[in-house]
Amino acid sequence: MTQKYVYAFGNENTEGNAEMQDLLGGKGANLAEMATLGIQVPPGFIISTEACAHYFKRKNSFPPKLWDEVLARLKNLEQVLGRKFGDTENPLLVAVRSGARVSMPGMMDTVLNLGLNDATAKGLAKNTKNERFALDSYRRFISMFGNVVLGIPGEKFEAVLAKKKLKRNIEFDTEFTSRELKALIRQFKTLVVRATREEFPEDSMQQLRMTIEAVFNSWNTERARTYRRLNGIPHEWGTAVTVQSMVFGNMGDTSATGVAFTRNPATGEKKFYGEYMINAQGEDVVAGIRTPNPIEKLQQDMPEVYQTLVRVYQKLENHYKDMQDLEFTIENKTLYLLQTRAGKRTTASAIKVAIDMVNEGLISKREALMRVPANQLDQIFHPMIDPKAKLKLLATGLGASPGAAEGKIVFTPERAQELADKKEKVILVRMETSPEDIHGISVSQGILTARGGMTSHAAVVARAMGKPCVSGVSTLQVNVKRKKCTLGNIQLKQLDSITLDGTTGQVIKGAVPLIQPRLTNNFLRMMDWAEEVRSLQIRANADNPHDALMARDFGAQGIGLCRTEHMFFDEERIFLARKMIIANDEKIRDEALKKLLPIQREDFTEIFKVMDGFPVTVRLLDPPLHEFLPNSSAEIKNLANRMEVSPRALGGKIESMKEVNPMLGHRGCRLGITFPGIYRMQVRAVAEAACKLIKKGVKVFPEIMVPLVAHVNEFKVVRELIVETAEEVMQKTGVDMNYKIGTMIELPRAALTADEIAVDADFFSFGTNDLTQTAFGLSRDDCGGFLNQYLEKGLLTHDPFVTVDEDGLGQLICIAIDKAKKVKPDIHFGVCGEHGGDPASINFFNKIGLGYVSCSPYRVPTAILAAAQAVIQEDR
Amino acid sequence: MTQKYVYAFGNENTEGNAEMQDLLGGKGANLAEMATLGIQVPPGFIISTEACAHYFKRKNSFPPKLWDEVLARLKNLEQVLGRKFGDTENPLLVAVRSGARVSMPGMMDTVLNLGLNDATAKGLAKNTKNERFALDSYRRFISMFGNVVLGIPGEKFEAVLAKKKLKRNIEFDTEFTSRELKALIRQFKTLVVRATREEFPEDSMQQLRMTIEAVFNSWNTERARTYRRLNGIPHEWGTAVTVQSMVFGNMGDTSATGVAFTRNPATGEKKFYGEYMINAQGEDVVAGIRTPNPIEKLQQDMPEVYQTLVRVYQKLENHYKDMQDLEFTIENKTLYLLQTRAGKRTTASAIKVAIDMVNEGLISKREALMRVPANQLDQIFHPMIDPKAKLKLLATGLGASPGAAEGKIVFTPERAQELADKKEKVILVRMETSPEDIHGISVSQGILTARGGMTSHAAVVARAMGKPCVSGVSTLQVNVKRKKCTLGNIQLKQLDSITLDGTTGQVIKGAVPLIQPRLTNNFLRMMDWAEEVRSLQIRANADNPHDALMARDFGAQGIGLCRTEHMFFDEERIFLARKMIIANDEKIRDEALKKLLPIQREDFTEIFKVMDGFPVTVRLLDPPLHEFLPNSSAEIKNLANRMEVSPRALGGKIESMKEVNPMLGHRGCRLGITFPGIYRMQVRAVAEAACKLIKKGVKVFPEIMVPLVAHVNEFKVVRELIVETAEEVMQKTGVDMNYKIGTMIELPRAALTADEIAVDADFFSFGTNDLTQTAFGLSRDDCGGFLNQYLEKGLLTHDPFVTVDEDGLGQLICIAIDKAKKVKPDIHFGVCGEHGGDPASINFFNKIGLGYVSCSPYRVPTAILAAAQAVIQEDR
Repeated sequence: MTQKYVYAFGNENTEGNAEMQDLLGGKGANLAEMATLGIQVPPGFIISTEACAHYFKRKNSFPPKLWDEVLARLKNLEQVLGRKFGDTENPLLVAVRSGARVSMPGMMDTVLNLGLNDATAKGLAKNTKNERFALDSYRRFISMFGNVVLGIPGEKFEAVLAKKKLKRNIEFDTEFTSRELKALIRQFKTLVVRATREEFPEDSMQQLRMTIEAVFNSWNTERARTYRRLNGIPHEWGTAVTVQSMVFGNMGDTSATGVAFTRNPATGEKKFYGEYMINAQGEDVVAGIRTPNPIEKLQQDMPEVYQTLVRVYQKLENHYKDMQDLEFTIENKTLYLLQTRAGKRTTASAIKVAIDMVNEGLISKREALMRVPANQLDQIFHPMIDPKAKLKLLATGLGASPGAAEGKIVFTPERAQELADKKEKVILVRMETSPEDIHGISVSQGILTARGGMTSHAAVVARAMGKPCVSGVSTLQVNVKRKKCTLGNIQLKQLDSITLDGTTGQVIKGAVPLIQPRLTNNFLRMMDWAEEVRSLQIRANADNPHDALMARDFGAQGIGLCRTEHMFFDEERIFLARKMIIANDEKIRDEALKKLLPIQREDFTEIFKVMDGFPVTVRLLDPPLHEFLPNSSAEIKNLANRMEVSPRALGGKIESMKEVNPMLGHRGCRLGITFPGIYRMQVRAVAEAACKLIKKGVKVFPEIMVPLVAHVNEFKVVRELIVETAEEVMQKTGVDMNYKIGTMIELPRAALTADEIAVDADFFSFGTNDLTQTAFGLSRDDCGGFLNQYLEKGLLTHDPFVTVDEDGLGQLICIAIDKAKKVKPDIHFGVCGEHGGDPASINFFNKIGLGYVSCSPYRVPTAILAAAQAVIQEDR
Repeated sequence: MTQKYVYAFGNENTEGNAEMQDLLGGKGANLAEMATLGIQVPPGFIISTEACAHYFKRKNSFPPKLWDEVLARLKNLEQVLGRKFGDTENPLLVAVRSGARVSMPGMMDTVLNLGLNDATAKGLAKNTKNERFALDSYRRFISMFGNVVLGIPGEKFEAVLAKKKLKRNIEFDTEFTSRELKALIRQFKTLVVRATREEFPEDSMQQLRMTIEAVFNSWNTERARTYRRLNGIPHEWGTAVTVQSMVFGNMGDTSATGVAFTRNPATGEKKFYGEYMINAQGEDVVAGIRTPNPIEKLQQDMPEVYQTLVRVYQKLENHYKDMQDLEFTIENKTLYLLQTRAGKRTTASAIKVAIDMVNEGLISKREALMRVPANQLDQIFHPMIDPKAKLKLLATGLGASPGAAEGKIVFTPERAQELADKKEKVILVRMETSPEDIHGISVSQGILTARGGMTSHAAVVARAMGKPCVSGVSTLQVNVKRKKCTLGNIQLKQLDSITLDGTTGQVIKGAVPLIQPRLTNNFLRMMDWAEEVRSLQIRANADNPHDALMARDFGAQGIGLCRTEHMFFDEERIFLARKMIIANDEKIRDEALKKLLPIQREDFTEIFKVMDGFPVTVRLLDPPLHEFLPNSSAEIKNLANRMEVSPRALGGKIESMKEVNPMLGHRGCRLGITFPGIYRMQVRAVAEAACKLIKKGVKVFPEIMVPLVAHVNEFKVVRELIVETAEEVMQKTGVDMNYKIGTMIELPRAALTADEIAVDADFFSFGTNDLTQTAFGLSRDDCGGFLNQYLEKGLLTHDPFVTVDEDGLGQLICIAIDKAKKVKPDIHFGVCGEHGGDPASINFFNKIGLGYVSCSPYRVPTAILAAAQAVIQEDR
């Protein structure tokens, strides 16, 4: 069988349906579906996505037979409509649109009125007896073709138009006379020649072929590639091309064009919602030159057409069982549907629509759960930038802590404090932050840093405080002395306003209006449904009572990762921590540890209280010690003074502790083995806190977790230390504490020897961040530059730090599970890396049978929903 | 069955043999074997290694029944010998010795004459009618027991003895009178009381029990643990204890004690070799108080005993079929053997003995191959420190480039040059080296650095130049300005002499005599035999014609790793490399690459010429770019001048290129993907060099290797670039080059997805260095401190960077092989990490069926021999 590239639709000759989106694109497949449903669509044909893929494989040339098929379909269309493409008497005009499997901004949108030239425009005028309409259509075609096919900036055409309006002192383009339109057409053509150094193509077939190629090529624009990268869409899919006979909304006051949603896309309210414009073509609505009318007004303007539209939208919603986004054109009081698709909506709207549709009996609860994008669920907990606001983007960094914030720039924590005392909103802008900045961070609305990744000090502290943070903005240069900073070419000074979007990583000029979050009953109901379905347990990463409380409120079933190092990120404690680290002799170290013990005990006491009845996984100290050390000479001086040593000696010690690759250095349980006193202090703090609370009737289930185990012997040694210390505390207090000891599986070797490690472990928690770093040999702090290029060039489809790499990492996890279960069938498995809050990763973790995932408190609802969706997907 | 802990030997009641070394220790098993052979040994019994292991498991207490068994065996011994332990009339005396499976320094050696006290000494005197002998034995016992059991430094006893000799003005202790010996005994006892605050134990049973415990405990001395760590001996083995009835070499002029080798341990010459001492006990020979006689003299002193000894040594050598190291005692003209074991020997001796024994029909060629320790084979290619020299050790660092060197200290390359011009031998001492030091390194005898590991600049350059290097000496502080350095507490100044041992990492005070290497026909014959047996191919790591030539001379069958980055470590080239890296725009980068192209082409031309007919695996640029950048402000200034940019801008650029974890950063094929020009230049250089030589009839087989692939798509992209460039050169030159494209498997993810990568790869080369780093999450540059502690504490039995970790890394390698073979059964596998020259690792690589290993040129013979031994071991 030879390959078929072109599919017809409309006029009882429809070759596709809504299921064929992969082949026909979303737009084309739904046009075919509507035609089959008996809804009036202008007939046409679709060039398949396969044709596009073959076009790229053949280094941008049409596959054989494609053009022949196009010509054959065009002939059919001519016969059906009784018009002829390129004909000077009764010309057939077409609209050409791109249409990928999923809607995608950045690609070529639409060329309308294709087939017009000087001769056919005259024919159209004669045939419709409406010269003005024909000329209006022609000038629109030239500018659209000129822009999207020939690549001339649209503003150039608009400038000509605006100049002409100004000269004529008119407001709307509908007011141009035929004569003026003719002049405009000439001017547009001159513009094309100037820009391209070629004549505007008069041959309709050439116009069509060029446009189809332009649609194909638009698949590969920078913007389209970036969008695909950000949304995980494979570059090899390609786009379909829809060629559809024209209907005209610009044929006078009995014609119109419009867009509508079957329900409110912002709120979900069940009310037909949309707008239309009399005597206009599609692009006029988007361009906003005239103000469109609300859809209700159509009932007065054209009552019969409105009734038809209402019947159509209800039919479509009932058919698709989802809120639809429609495009239509009214040509001389006849309604034509040009597009239907699932309507984009806010998360709040998605929740309301889904719940309403369950109540209406349209969909099941399980279908409703699938309708809410889990990944965007936390939108509703954070302030958001008002989607209507116009943004001046200054830079994009890492979205390190979600939510939006606006305020005045300050460069030092002191200045932040000063202004905050005066009730000013400030944004702290630093090259990077350190524990000395904590008080500045705590009074700021948000944090912006030039350096550091998702696990940098700024990111970690900001997330813990629930403040937006954008980190790793490589174009940012801060000059603290001069109270200035530059973002690329733009210079900002202290007290200039900026806005941060910590979800997307965007840095925006000025203060932009924000929308404050609001939790609804609908959200709670949706969560209840998800609870019923999911089987994965959801825990939260929390290092303090505040986060723990939030996690509980959101439904977390325990703490899966309590990072003890974050407890030292406090101005007073850091001194003790530093003393402990720098100490050359055991005595000084022991003294510092003795002072840290009650502090840590108090930390755990508060967290255990909040988590009454739920497990709390405490990870023993993990990061390389030098992360705790001061960097600047002022900080070193300060510490040296307090420690009564010379700054020079201290500086030398700090220098000697620096590591070439700290990620692979002296950290994790390696610290606990070389400095057992540190771990002993931490375990004692956990056990003492737990035993005291248990005596008071609080249910405490500590799970002590050993980080960075590579070899079973490391785990054995630390386990022994934990058991010894815990038993000692239990004996002393006379309390029987129910505790577990487990380990992070975050190094490939640990996964590969999981059977050895499992023998003595109660649980495994996969540390997928570090496991990704080591399996890929990829430092999260350093990969920004080339990883983006990889995603851009399509070498990777996903950022492996966002969505777990099933092919590589997935194997390691499965190997570890299989091996561990062989020696200990009842061992528990969880995940505590960032992937624990990523829906695609949760789907994978559910599939391979993990017990729980742990994520940041704000991501708990996302994880609950994603876990439910994973079950539903698996059942399908 | 109850556990048996004690085994008898001698007097026709022997319960063990030479095969039972694991249980009885080497010493005990061979005593049993000799007894069975009919060779006269003093009877006794052996406490097994299991008893020792149980002793440690029970936290240093005897397992139940052990003491009862000892008492029972002691009773047997009393009956056989007709003497009684602790008896005042006819006392039985015993010698107690430690004996592990393998001989091990640092453990308790021997307590002789045990059973003596004031009363039994009198009995002995009466019974032997030799009071002097009894007193001499007693004073020896007190000092030995005092030293090895009670822990009193031997020097204290020696000091008392020396003082007494001085007072009496005598030379030898044999000259003491009985009266003087009695006084000495009193003084020794006082010394014991002073040191231990307890009386010397007079109870023989208590003496015995204490001594057995002391032997057990000596297994865990610092020195013993260190030795085991360095030699890969498990800590859980434990030591056996031999309790043997005493025979006396100090009973007068008809008695003697001695040691002998059945052949010369230094040269291998087939000649009985040894020494003895009349009227002495074993420790006298070692202590060197009197000069012993050469063994030949015994023929005159006691001709019959000598004949017996010759018969015994021949019997033993024929029985064991190996050169033996004997200890014997002659008591009143009766010969007793106290020990036989395989004699330690130099590598040269091992080779000669093995070949001679094949000629003598004693062993087969295959057995001969097993007799030479592959790991020490390269001893014979490097200058060695004369083993007879007394050394004053200053520090120990990493043995980064093998061989020994001595010279005067210099701190700058300029000074090195100056002195070298005057024909002085110099050692360059630096905190770390950089490409600016190259000319200094090239004129020095050896290099000593404070920083850097086995892959540091100094180490790499030194190995390439064949110069000894000790790196990573953390106690070294260099003050270039003051022309001084300190090593711990010791200060050295310019022109002081030092000696380096780049094999062991030792830094030694002063100029020590060195032995120059000499290759023998025996060595060549041994290599020929190994060639016949081995199946693994052996290639060499070589980056220049000099190394390539050496590799060929040693029998390498190709270059398995040609590191192209080392080609830039040259003062002139580094400038171009730096320019290329720092370039902000493509044009400047391309210019630098254009200038580098002919240089690289010339490099490859020379290497290909040398390797005519053999494959050369060229690895494309691998290290993080910032490794090429200047560090010091002087270097930065210099480069900025040459590049005509401001030092400040350059410094900023360099700063911005620094990475947190360069090991996991922007390196390997990531560079080739983001800066394709670099790889294109390298491939062009390879292809142009190859094609030109092929035209001239040289047989060139380039294998282009892509480093640090984590994902198949990386390999695909680089492969395409290689093919394009290579095809272009081939077309232009009209030459058909037979080349391969493969990849390093050095990241866990690559191993796990080897089936995907294998599809387009001609070969895999396991980069076991990086694979170890990532699988373990262990930075080779940073792990020094805690890894040593791990080895010390027994958490790891081997340094995984020296011997491949079979449990973890081995799995990854096997997974990769299995997966790759499934999609491409004929794909080639090799290893190019440092493990390629380690015999234990080679054994593993042979077992799992790799095609080749690649190692440094000097290690090629080691690898050839180890590969042969691996085959022999597998066949067994």
